[in-house]
Amino acid sequence: MVAKSQIKLITSLAQKKYRQQHGLFVVEGIKGIQELLQSRFKLHSLYVLEEHKTDFPGQKTIEIDQKTLKKVSFLKSPQKALAVFEIPEESKAELPGQGLQLVLDDVRDPGNLGTIIRLCDWFGITHLICSAQTVDCYNPKVVQATMGSLGRVHITYRDLTIFLAEQKLPVYGAFMDGTAIYKEKLPENAVLVLGNEGNGISTEVEKHVQHRISIPQFGSPTAESLNVATAGAILINTFRERGGV
Amino acid sequence: MVAKSQIKLITSLAQKKYRQQHGLFVVEGIKGIQELLQSRFKLHSLYVLEEHKTDFPGQKTIEIDQKTLKKVSFLKSPQKALAVFEIPEESKAELPGQGLQLVLDDVRDPGNLGTIIRLCDWFGITHLICSAQTVDCYNPKVVQATMGSLGRVHITYRDLTIFLAEQKLPVYGAFMDGTAIYKEKLPENAVLVLGNEGNGISTEVEKHVQHRISIPQFGSPTAESLNVATAGAILINTFRERGGV
Repeated sequence: MVAKSQIKLITSLAQKKYRQQHGLFVVEGIKGIQELLQSRFKLHSLYVLEEHKTDFPGQKTIEIDQKTLKKVSFLKSPQKALAVFEIPEESKAELPGQGLQLVLDDVRDPGNLGTIIRLCDWFGITHLICSAQTVDCYNPKVVQATMGSLGRVHITYRDLTIFLAEQKLPVYGAFMDGTAIYKEKLPENAVLVLGNEGNGISTEVEKHVQHRISIPQFGSPTAESLNVATAGAILINTFRERGGV
Repeated sequence: MVAKSQIKLITSLAQKKYRQQHGLFVVEGIKGIQELLQSRFKLHSLYVLEEHKTDFPGQKTIEIDQKTLKKVSFLKSPQKALAVFEIPEESKAELPGQGLQLVLDDVRDPGNLGTIIRLCDWFGITHLICSAQTVDCYNPKVVQATMGSLGRVHITYRDLTIFLAEQKLPVYGAFMDGTAIYKEKLPENAVLVLGNEGNGISTEVEKHVQHRISIPQFGSPTAESLNVATAGAILINTFRERGGV
């Protein structure tokens, strides 16, 4: 059975301050948990409906009933298992000095961050650097949107002005009025900065961008700008296609 | 003031069957409404907070108070205005026989459809053809996610097997095991089919696809497949970049 203190701990992890305090976050769903069990993440506790214990052979599980699962779940439709994992300590020294690195300047929507983490996984971007104001990657909505990719992408939160000032790779940034990417030569090793949903890249961060790029528009001049995750997909794909990889 | 019958009508439009019965749908927010007022859509009724009437000069508005607006709104945080528009009759004859046409085979998530409509707007795709099982484009969540692009993209629901069987343009479809788009020659005039979130393109529709294409993967072999809107963004951009436009 699940103790009251365990229920209290799990529900507290909906909030960033308690995730940071405990160094823990929640993953829901058998597939997502199985994927994270195979990653660098360390399991803290695993709650499973009795009939699904066999989905986690060799793992110590805590039996949970439907009612309790519904109570602690962050989802409208609770899954069959819920796990608490430890938030890893991201070493400040581990950023590679080559390849394509993605930087997010205040991306606020959990769905967008989740989609971007999946993009990194697909395109082999191992390191994602986020500004302090970017939504927490251990936010339950982000975790749910990453579908397991979270375990394969290293995410660090930094002061971007310091990170970019020390950067040796060329820095590209997405701007509405940048050079069309169809014309731009793109290197294999680079930093790509994507900005906030409403305001784009901040003035402070913009100072460190050497190459302003944009995605050409073909439709109505009044068309809404592309969503940051959508724009990110197109830009990362273009770097991968033409970046000599 | 807002009559009870008007409140009943608006709230009923959350459901597809009532949208179809009345031929009406709801748009919320000043900017979205202003954009649709400049499109081919015909206004049915416009509900505005008193202090925002001046945002709609020359329009007949119905004054609504905060409390009533909250009651009828489909949003967690209601906007300052709510409009009911007529669903246009989409002529069966109006599909152009050239350019890039996008076809959706059972895309179910409102957010994905909204993002795809914005993509069409950005990339100048004027016609979007959806299978009957694709989520309704007048669903409030879709309307909210399109941010005004809905007025600039013609969306029709068709039996895809009939539509594709009669198609004279080459038909491309996105498959996990298709030819890498980096290698494929892409024409200016084509039909591009995107499939369902979980199952991809259905067997029936697949029979009409002549060119199976995919987005190359660079990361972990266990990476989650790209979200349909994300994959769509990359594919449409590639057609635009290399399709001779």
